Amino acid sequence: MTTYNPVTDKIADELRKIVGEKYVIFKDSEKLEPYSHDEIPGKDYAHMPEVVVRPRTKEEISSIMKLANREMVPITPRGAGSGLSGGAVPIKGGILLSVDRMNSILEIDRENLMIVVEPGVVANEINEAIREFGLFYAGYPMSLETCFIGGNVAENAGGGKAVKYGVTSRYVLGLETVMPTGEIVEFGGKLLKDVTGYNMVQLMIGSEGTLGLFTKIILKLVPLPKAQVDLLCLFKSSEEAIAAVPKIMTTAGITPTSIEYMDKDSVQAACQYLNENIPYQKAGAMLLITVDGTDKQQVEKDYELVGELCIKEGAIEVYVADNSTTSERIWKVRRNIPEAFSVFSKRQSGEDIVVPPASIPKVVIEFKKLSEKFGVVIPCYGHAGDGNLHSRISPPPDWTDKKWKETLPLILEELYKVTASLGGRISGEHGIGHKRKKYMRKVVSEEYMDVIKSIKKALDPNCILNPGKIFDL
Amino acid sequence: MTTYNPVTDKIADELRKIVGEKYVIFKDSEKLEPYSHDEIPGKDYAHMPEVVVRPRTKEEISSIMKLANREMVPITPRGAGSGLSGGAVPIKGGILLSVDRMNSILEIDRENLMIVVEPGVVANEINEAIREFGLFYAGYPMSLETCFIGGNVAENAGGGKAVKYGVTSRYVLGLETVMPTGEIVEFGGKLLKDVTGYNMVQLMIGSEGTLGLFTKIILKLVPLPKAQVDLLCLFKSSEEAIAAVPKIMTTAGITPTSIEYMDKDSVQAACQYLNENIPYQKAGAMLLITVDGTDKQQVEKDYELVGELCIKEGAIEVYVADNSTTSERIWKVRRNIPEAFSVFSKRQSGEDIVVPPASIPKVVIEFKKLSEKFGVVIPCYGHAGDGNLHSRISPPPDWTDKKWKETLPLILEELYKVTASLGGRISGEHGIGHKRKKYMRKVVSEEYMDVIKSIKKALDPNCILNPGKIFDL
Repeated sequence: MTTYNPVTDKIADELRKIVGEKYVIFKDSEKLEPYSHDEIPGKDYAHMPEVVVRPRTKEEISSIMKLANREMVPITPRGAGSGLSGGAVPIKGGILLSVDRMNSILEIDRENLMIVVEPGVVANEINEAIREFGLFYAGYPMSLETCFIGGNVAENAGGGKAVKYGVTSRYVLGLETVMPTGEIVEFGGKLLKDVTGYNMVQLMIGSEGTLGLFTKIILKLVPLPKAQVDLLCLFKSSEEAIAAVPKIMTTAGITPTSIEYMDKDSVQAACQYLNENIPYQKAGAMLLITVDGTDKQQVEKDYELVGELCIKEGAIEVYVADNSTTSERIWKVRRNIPEAFSVFSKRQSGEDIVVPPASIPKVVIEFKKLSEKFGVVIPCYGHAGDGNLHSRISPPPDWTDKKWKETLPLILEELYKVTASLGGRISGEHGIGHKRKKYMRKVVSEEYMDVIKSIKKALDPNCILNPGKIFDL
Repeated sequence: MTTYNPVTDKIADELRKIVGEKYVIFKDSEKLEPYSHDEIPGKDYAHMPEVVVRPRTKEEISSIMKLANREMVPITPRGAGSGLSGGAVPIKGGILLSVDRMNSILEIDRENLMIVVEPGVVANEINEAIREFGLFYAGYPMSLETCFIGGNVAENAGGGKAVKYGVTSRYVLGLETVMPTGEIVEFGGKLLKDVTGYNMVQLMIGSEGTLGLFTKIILKLVPLPKAQVDLLCLFKSSEEAIAAVPKIMTTAGITPTSIEYMDKDSVQAACQYLNENIPYQKAGAMLLITVDGTDKQQVEKDYELVGELCIKEGAIEVYVADNSTTSERIWKVRRNIPEAFSVFSKRQSGEDIVVPPASIPKVVIEFKKLSEKFGVVIPCYGHAGDGNLHSRISPPPDWTDKKWKETLPLILEELYKVTASLGGRISGEHGIGHKRKKYMRKVVSEEYMDVIKSIKKALDPNCILNPGKIFDL
């Protein structure tokens, strides 16, 4: 394991010279504390940085990287801190590099249907900025009101529209990147296709800030869909609801924008948290299905087809939201499920497994079995249409911390074993960070780990950038 | 530069033991010759292999890789040999590894909308096999009747439907890969999203056989579009035709499946080669625009919108092909342009530049200028909708070989300079191979080259696999 040096007064002074005095936080634990954790409930995965720097330019970041290599001090990059795997947590101390000041939309390129942004732009701001031009960025992470686009790229965020539109990686065309050794390199560009060299853009996406720091991001835009309808499909049981998902994907002959699954516990938690009332929240489980398109009539045809299919598959009611207010009410409930659970309890394990889409019903059944076997609650929700299911494993209130900490690994052991047996993986969109790294070998081979470690070593020989994430070196 | 050892009798014997006597070609120049070139016209980029091996399994390939590392003999992987950048040409001699025997469709997974294939499956066979299930693989390289899917993945093939459907990379979910050092590793899987480790699948795609050899490929399928219409839009001049392209992309509010550009020379060459007559082949230039979708009425609406827009942008005629026979006739002409040029002359340089889509008209103007300046012909055609233009620079018949070989680099120098100034790259889908490697630094930085070389060295320390492609090590 690499050993690092502490951040000395001299190093802090050099950092101040690079970014300016007011953009360095050092020896002030109150101000450092917010940078010690992400959105994982509780403090199990938190760690204090020694110093926080908030650069404004790629040149500043390059200087910081070079300094860190020279002094053998680790750097942890941080976006909005809205992650769920500890990816932005400085677990080796050292320098926490926040990109929050790099928050400009640099260019809206209507001729090429592209936008150029800095990493600290909030995901939602992108669509706010381009709506008037009839354009649309298809990324839709559930934390879109707070998360930064830089973090979306680093984690290859998925989200609510990935069934039709794919995940973040489909829209990232170019990345200006500061390498771990300080070089500034342009990968990709305003290009819809490009085989000039290796696909470094795609290698960088989802590398969780371990291979480089993005200073400029070129995103592809699409024409804004002119019509959208959401269907809230209510089922008696979670089994019936989830069993309908693969059938919608394969038999309707259309690709919905979203197929989100929410069980009763999830819906009720979010409604309680938001003080919201959505119809039939006592149904056993719901599917939230979105259909969008360029033509209103076509969208109507499509949603009728999907609605009928859900009824055929056992839905007891299909509620249609065809205006933006109602649609946003329902989606807000969906988006706030994780936050609601976080508020209600600090003792929980948020899971993010992904399996081949047709196997998603098996996962729900497995969660239910584990819930009964271990006496915990495991509410489930998530992006069922693409095989990615979230859950929040939580102990009963009377469990001691000791019992919880002893039992959780046993539950995860079994859950990941099932996931692996279905050809699945332990993270679909939240990332491995340091939360899941010890479970990597449950789903990938030793040879796979060797390959990715060798790439890390090739690009970051001193292991300066975001060490202790995905694997240890 | 790495030095390699020759293939000895002893090595040939070992190869025979691995794959079986009849699947090794050694010391038989007549049988070795077909493996010495790809589809680049002429012999400038050809090189004879010392031995050809045709393995059937991943284990055999693994053994060959290990042998090559031990003996320091290079391996060049080969699909159908339909490439256009010399990627499959064994320029260092050594072992030519053909995947032509690994040609099975292993599984059609209708529940997950996926297909699992071996690398030697012909691209077109995939759609033949799945049509009856209402499914569709969206890759559509122009050589689809002959090219192998393994080569499509290695070069990240683009093709005719990429405007709407994207290139090969969007559909590759998993790659069983034999690494250059012989380990067999699974990357990705039947997963629509996955952030469990680095995105090795996407790094492998387009790496031109330099980072690993794919033995199993998992592809995503989509519902077969129920309706398709092709518009052949005729313009008086190439300038008018190409100027319409960015406008179609930005103002129609829909994304056509294809926007192909063909100038007069290209259309006439292909028609002559095929002995075909398509309407109005004497127009100055044509756009072949495809619109497809799940609904016939919607497709009709869309194509009318596009057709009207073309007329507004100066099209003198819009010819509608709404049945598969007529459609295939037109597309066959488009697909056969490169072959037609190859047959007519061995002296030509096929280019594949890609620029931001809105800059595509500038490239056509630039080709015209260069044509006049140097007194050569430069017919242009290609995937204008995604900014990727092909051309075949050819000298007049009376030029000596010497004059042609002296002049071509001067033409390319100027062309690539313009490409770079527009933020473009020298290959959109054909790859760098060894044909274009000396021009890499025209469009990417030294730092970029260092990054990709370091990845190559990390995964292939002896530089055994496809050496001399993309860069020299």
